[in-house]
Amino acid sequence: MTSNLEISRNATLKPLADVAAAMGIGEHLCEPYGRTTAKISLDAIGELADRPKARYVVVSSVTPTPFGEGKTTTTVGLGQAFAHLGKRGVIAIRQASMGPTFGIKGGAAGGGYAQVVPMESVNLHLTGDLHAVTSAHNLLAAMVDNHLHKGNRLGIDPFAITWRRVLDVNDRDLRQIVTGLGGKADGLPRQTGFDITAASEVMAVLALADSLPDLRARLGRIVVGYTGDGEPVTAEQLRAAGAMCVQLREAIKPNLMQTVEQTPALVHCGPFGNIAHGNSSVVADLIGIRGGDYLVTEAGFGADMGAERFFNIKCRASGLVPDAAVVVATVRALKAHSGRYRVVAGRPLPEGMLDESPDDVHAGAANLRRQIANIRAHGVTPVVAVNAFPTDFDSEKRAIADIAAGEGVRAAISNHVAAGGKGAAELAEAVAEACAEPARFGFLYPDDLPLDRKIETVARRMYGADGIDPSPAARRQLDSYERCGFGSLPVCIAKTHLSLSADPSRKGAPTGWLLPVREVRASVGAGFVYPICGDMRTMPGLSSHPAAEVIDIDESGQVVGLA
Amino acid sequence: MTSNLEISRNATLKPLADVAAAMGIGEHLCEPYGRTTAKISLDAIGELADRPKARYVVVSSVTPTPFGEGKTTTTVGLGQAFAHLGKRGVIAIRQASMGPTFGIKGGAAGGGYAQVVPMESVNLHLTGDLHAVTSAHNLLAAMVDNHLHKGNRLGIDPFAITWRRVLDVNDRDLRQIVTGLGGKADGLPRQTGFDITAASEVMAVLALADSLPDLRARLGRIVVGYTGDGEPVTAEQLRAAGAMCVQLREAIKPNLMQTVEQTPALVHCGPFGNIAHGNSSVVADLIGIRGGDYLVTEAGFGADMGAERFFNIKCRASGLVPDAAVVVATVRALKAHSGRYRVVAGRPLPEGMLDESPDDVHAGAANLRRQIANIRAHGVTPVVAVNAFPTDFDSEKRAIADIAAGEGVRAAISNHVAAGGKGAAELAEAVAEACAEPARFGFLYPDDLPLDRKIETVARRMYGADGIDPSPAARRQLDSYERCGFGSLPVCIAKTHLSLSADPSRKGAPTGWLLPVREVRASVGAGFVYPICGDMRTMPGLSSHPAAEVIDIDESGQVVGLA
Repeated sequence: MTSNLEISRNATLKPLADVAAAMGIGEHLCEPYGRTTAKISLDAIGELADRPKARYVVVSSVTPTPFGEGKTTTTVGLGQAFAHLGKRGVIAIRQASMGPTFGIKGGAAGGGYAQVVPMESVNLHLTGDLHAVTSAHNLLAAMVDNHLHKGNRLGIDPFAITWRRVLDVNDRDLRQIVTGLGGKADGLPRQTGFDITAASEVMAVLALADSLPDLRARLGRIVVGYTGDGEPVTAEQLRAAGAMCVQLREAIKPNLMQTVEQTPALVHCGPFGNIAHGNSSVVADLIGIRGGDYLVTEAGFGADMGAERFFNIKCRASGLVPDAAVVVATVRALKAHSGRYRVVAGRPLPEGMLDESPDDVHAGAANLRRQIANIRAHGVTPVVAVNAFPTDFDSEKRAIADIAAGEGVRAAISNHVAAGGKGAAELAEAVAEACAEPARFGFLYPDDLPLDRKIETVARRMYGADGIDPSPAARRQLDSYERCGFGSLPVCIAKTHLSLSADPSRKGAPTGWLLPVREVRASVGAGFVYPICGDMRTMPGLSSHPAAEVIDIDESGQVVGLA
Repeated sequence: MTSNLEISRNATLKPLADVAAAMGIGEHLCEPYGRTTAKISLDAIGELADRPKARYVVVSSVTPTPFGEGKTTTTVGLGQAFAHLGKRGVIAIRQASMGPTFGIKGGAAGGGYAQVVPMESVNLHLTGDLHAVTSAHNLLAAMVDNHLHKGNRLGIDPFAITWRRVLDVNDRDLRQIVTGLGGKADGLPRQTGFDITAASEVMAVLALADSLPDLRARLGRIVVGYTGDGEPVTAEQLRAAGAMCVQLREAIKPNLMQTVEQTPALVHCGPFGNIAHGNSSVVADLIGIRGGDYLVTEAGFGADMGAERFFNIKCRASGLVPDAAVVVATVRALKAHSGRYRVVAGRPLPEGMLDESPDDVHAGAANLRRQIANIRAHGVTPVVAVNAFPTDFDSEKRAIADIAAGEGVRAAISNHVAAGGKGAAELAEAVAEACAEPARFGFLYPDDLPLDRKIETVARRMYGADGIDPSPAARRQLDSYERCGFGSLPVCIAKTHLSLSADPSRKGAPTGWLLPVREVRASVGAGFVYPICGDMRTMPGLSSHPAAEVIDIDESGQVVGLA
């Protein structure tokens, strides 16, 4: 089988200026960064405002297995497929985090004949946006500690500092650290830690800002901790937000690339999918929406997570209205949702799971049905994409289509990894039909609903819970956030992505449970409150044999070993 | 007075492809990174090998005051000046470290009409090379701790790990930290710390490698610590070097920019000037040496430090032979070397120092004489550049020229900050004459001299010491390094740059002293051993009012407040 890296290398690329031109983006808006990527000026948003708006399609999925169900490949494949219908597709995906690339995970550029190229660029530094996030985040951290060191004018409580540091590396030893050892000249000893850069609030801010001034304002609103009286202290008060914005002034510009079939691809921002909203940037979509007939954008994790935040957080920020939502389903995932198999990351699939069994698929149908309902709850038309694997049987794939039909939902089997856009043509037709239906998009809850009611709404209507079970600490935090004026923000519920419930071992569509809310945190700059419902790891570790051990350059200077 | 930022913005830029073409670099070797910077493929080294070699000029200085004496502006001004003599100049400078940009320091792009533009790019992320160094360095750190966590196959002594982490930020609280707290899943508790990225050995490696395979090999030789038996453990043994090289495969390519007068400027790498060799990259010089009639390259700190390492470390790695060396001298610095004034960083100059006094200048002559001798000790012809300040009196500038004349050395007053290349035309003529003299370049010591003798040679012949005074620990380390096979490496002596001696308060050319060697460390990948002779700060802190507080974007999205 041809590897992703080989397919990427063999792809014929169009000059990027031509890719941009096809989207209406003139050369004055398009700065080359190497030969295969360009940054698009935010002036494009205003300059393209007269062009017709594309249909806006979000790609989500059933509750995934630890292996993922191919949302990125489906996004790329679907984007490519429109050309086979005589239409112009544009895609928008998140940027890969380099930590996991050298850890356990494969790349994040898609795969097979549905990938963004060159995959090495997507998976390595690209244009340095993640590094800019790291820099801006850590400048603020240094200014917080420097503020304590220089007299603490603002009266920050050293034990109430919530701002940690970030690095784009998998490094468990940085999760919990003590800084400021060594004596008075070396700072104030304090327990803190590092998260991976994708988990930085600055990343979420960058992904949600709709302009440079909006970015500047959001950075200023970031809360780094609290005074002894419980008053929030912001990056603006620390006079850090301007410098942070200067460090991010290139990173705010979306990166334009192309797929193996020369479909325009905007690759921009990669906020975490649990403690943050897990969607690519608002500015990329604001540009992409004028760039073709269909803009296909990806939302992290299952429809209860990424798509819910896409609707209630990202669309709130962008003002854009989705026309359809793809729910990616796989035979593997629905079999796992039958509860008959236990799929574990890094291990082979359980015995028997690859045997032909449409019955197993039907036994996992409840999850797909719930995720379909989650899309419909926002007034958006769902389309089920059956992402085909070589190990699937026809009867199994048909079973998924039958489940969708039972819900009155269009479905199509998509073979984009092996066949590229042509393999997703049927899916594209279904999506086009769905987009032609009248849109009745609406948020799940109004801004002025109290925070606890917002959490309860998502828990009941998206996750199928009977309600929420906040800890006393969480109750206090919610009250305090309402008092601080954060009550009008949307919520971003940090729970496992491996179950509709908060327990990763519960498959299908669990009922008869309460969502436990352990604590609540606020990303005020990004603009959401995030309740913590389970153990959320914000800094991964490396395995016994990290991917880094086999990644190298060969004699000709080419990268080898990148999956 | 027009600010550096305004002069930078008002500069007329040539298309970079034209700048490259003038150096013989075709478009196939030149990848744009934004509109004002391009990365040059290392293939250029081979492809340009038939072009005539430029004269190779290194710019150094007297022992500087804490304000610096204008080596970068002189490098830029001199490079620009050759055009005024009908010759083609090319310059090579170090890349700015972003930490200090947001700390206390001004930019590092030169200044006035002798700067590389746009100065915002030079002072901010540029093409992300420093971030790539940060990533590669910290990947190795994570793999070291992961190795301990996963069973410690190599038997690394946790107390003998020398590899720390790095970030490009001024953050005193990261100097000394304890990592790995929290329990077994979160690593092994260990005291360690962060240095600023410029102090990373990876930065020194990147600056000294002459090709991608050489980079790969040097990374593999990096020693991260020692086993219980005192055997060195390398990045190669940890299987990290390949992945590190992949992370650096773009960073190894020099960045081409231009000056305000459109002179080609290679901006690449910025290793520390005390614990590392403080020179821009070997590959930049290998490309620049075929790009014009004169390649002007800069070496950090005074001639006893940067130029000594340029000769004995950088030229050893590159194989290039210098034709002349500029020693930048200022009225301010020689007055400080009189011992009559105490110049302190961040404070105004002492009273009376701005009064006309050629006598003060003459009283500081010993430092200039010593630095002239340091150049001559390598068989290279020195030229004294009197870097003119608006506050200087003619009699004072003439005094410097007279001191040079007394040593039989060419001197020229240079007014490049106010007048650009034209202001340095006389200097360029002097340099051209010096280059025409027969070259007798030689290293200060042979490879096979024992390490302690190498240190002593530099101490006696460059610093004017009577010998060295190693601590018992330093003696043990030197013995151990000889046993480990590091004895053939050159030495990079980490001492203060503010005095020829190891005591920053001793001005002029101190005599009758021994160089105290507290401890000795090895950068085996970079390829040097560095004795520590004084307190070397490898992670700066922020001041009460960091530069970051006034750096911001204005309504039009332009950067303001960058000095």
